[in-house]
Amino acid sequence: MSRFVPKAANYAERVKESFARQGAMKLLGATLTRVEPGAVDIAVDFRPELNQQHDFFHGGVVGMIGDSAGGYAAFSLMPEDATVLTVEYKMNLLAPADGSRLVAHGRVLKPGRTLTISRVDIVVLRDGTEHLCATMLQTLMTMTGRLDAPRQR
Amino acid sequence: MSRFVPKAANYAERVKESFARQGAMKLLGATLTRVEPGAVDIAVDFRPELNQQHDFFHGGVVGMIGDSAGGYAAFSLMPEDATVLTVEYKMNLLAPADGSRLVAHGRVLKPGRTLTISRVDIVVLRDGTEHLCATMLQTLMTMTGRLDAPRQR
Amino acid sequence: MSRFVPKAANYAERVKESFARQGAMKLLGATLTRVEPGAVDIAVDFRPELNQQHDFFHGGVVGMIGDSAGGYAAFSLMPEDATVLTVEYKMNLLAPADGSRLVAHGRVLKPGRTLTISRVDIVVLRDGTEHLCATMLQTLMTMTGRLDAPRQR
Amino acid sequence: MSRFVPKAANYAERVKESFARQGAMKLLGATLTRVEPGAVDIAVDFRPELNQQHDFFHGGVVGMIGDSAGGYAAFSLMPEDATVLTVEYKMNLLAPADGSRLVAHGRVLKPGRTLTISRVDIVVLRDGTEHLCATMLQTLMTMTGRLDAPRQR
Repeated sequence: MSRFVPKAANYAERVKESFARQGAMKLLGATLTRVEPGAVDIAVDFRPELNQQHDFFHGGVVGMIGDSAGGYAAFSLMPEDATVLTVEYKMNLLAPADGSRLVAHGRVLKPGRTLTISRVDIVVLRDGTEHLCATMLQTLMTMTGRLDAPRQR
Repeated sequence: MSRFVPKAANYAERVKESFARQGAMKLLGATLTRVEPGAVDIAVDFRPELNQQHDFFHGGVVGMIGDSAGGYAAFSLMPEDATVLTVEYKMNLLAPADGSRLVAHGRVLKPGRTLTISRVDIVVLRDGTEHLCATMLQTLMTMTGRLDAPRQR
Repeated sequence: MSRFVPKAANYAERVKESFARQGAMKLLGATLTRVEPGAVDIAVDFRPELNQQHDFFHGGVVGMIGDSAGGYAAFSLMPEDATVLTVEYKMNLLAPADGSRLVAHGRVLKPGRTLTISRVDIVVLRDGTEHLCATMLQTLMTMTGRLDAPRQR
Repeated sequence: MSRFVPKAANYAERVKESFARQGAMKLLGATLTRVEPGAVDIAVDFRPELNQQHDFFHGGVVGMIGDSAGGYAAFSLMPEDATVLTVEYKMNLLAPADGSRLVAHGRVLKPGRTLTISRVDIVVLRDGTEHLCATMLQTLMTMTGRLDAPRQR
């Protein structure tokens, strides 16, 4: 289905294992709902701990799962000895994240040896319909020769 | 000290009350450490729940407190009947957020009736020194005639 | 064809007249190649005056026609008494703009009464094929009660 | 004066020679007005060919000299066998570029072996005073083993 060929045969396991090590994703209650070469989706259900002052999803939560979805989409195409680093991203909040579930669709736009560009659309489910609430453009860097694992503290 | 004159005399209370209603800030354990006209700082201490896969602060946490600091810096200059909305932001991650405490310094660059532009520098404390780890440029919108309060669910 | 309904019946004339008043577009030799509700394309042919040090199209030219295409796409949906202002944009340069002709495809992503968000893909023609060389995400503002005309100097 | 130490002793000549090869800068009438390690300024005087429909400097001209100033600020710190590439930038237009002369102040925020982050403030001179009209945040890439010279066409 995907137009990208992953460099690591076990790309899906790599994404899942790395995601599982992120305390911040656990704290949000976020889950991986799609892992394909160059395409990763992350979802999170609404609960009051994730709100802002109007009781919608906090924009920071939108940014957080957006950044992760685009970053893992890039990571899915990287070689086995590489890890991923977010260089920068820009996000436009298009509509209030008012709904029961937030889903970030991370898609690689342009893979590269050093830099990969991802686009992420973030939708919110309200009354059974998906509403586009944010879009993100993101630059990711391949870090080779570094394990995607925690440092020793 | 500040070069901006707030439109609401109770600007500091307004920022504190709005911040206190954000479940997402509570979830992170973030606190307001400075509230002046056009200048708001937000800090959060490291704990494993806020990490990414290398055990640094998650980039999403950096973005979340950065977005809030810049947004509240803008809100501090808005009139009493107004609330604030993030239109968009762009963040460059300059160095790993490796340290014990993260502080976002939100500063208004250009206030406006409809749009306000903020700049946010985010530093991480490591070995007693501040290290710049991210910088953000942000566009905020004044929403008038809307209370900065939760909707009825 | 378009999913947007223009507020001004003469939207196409308005775009063309405004474009014709831009000295900077004339200086580049840029032309309007498509004007539909929410969709505007701008093209420019290569000549040495538009190059950078490697003899490709200068990134500034890419940004310039991208900004104009997205801005006019937004303007095409605005009411008759309004003019358009670029609030901000972010552009990723994905590949060298190496080719004979540059085309910016400006598309409105989310129109709004005050703010409109556009996405612009910029392609370069090389050996008869279109290559995506840049993508832009842009925030535009509707300025009402101001004619889209030159000030008196 | 500068807090950065250039890797190439002839950094200033390198910047000037590269700038002189840019047809697009000549077309605008832009000039280099400052070249120091990590700090480059570019200025351009107003003339009708650089305007937009309200007879101010076109936003594209603002972006063009901003991108160049930040890019050459980064280039001034790079080794002799390297050239510079703009990865992406984001620019906020803060006020109309209404004035007689535009000056872009490009400053390196964070140099790096592969990536350098620059911040650019663009001011317009009006009635003898500098007015901040735009600010830019930019990611640049060091391309090693490639001459900063035109390809053979």
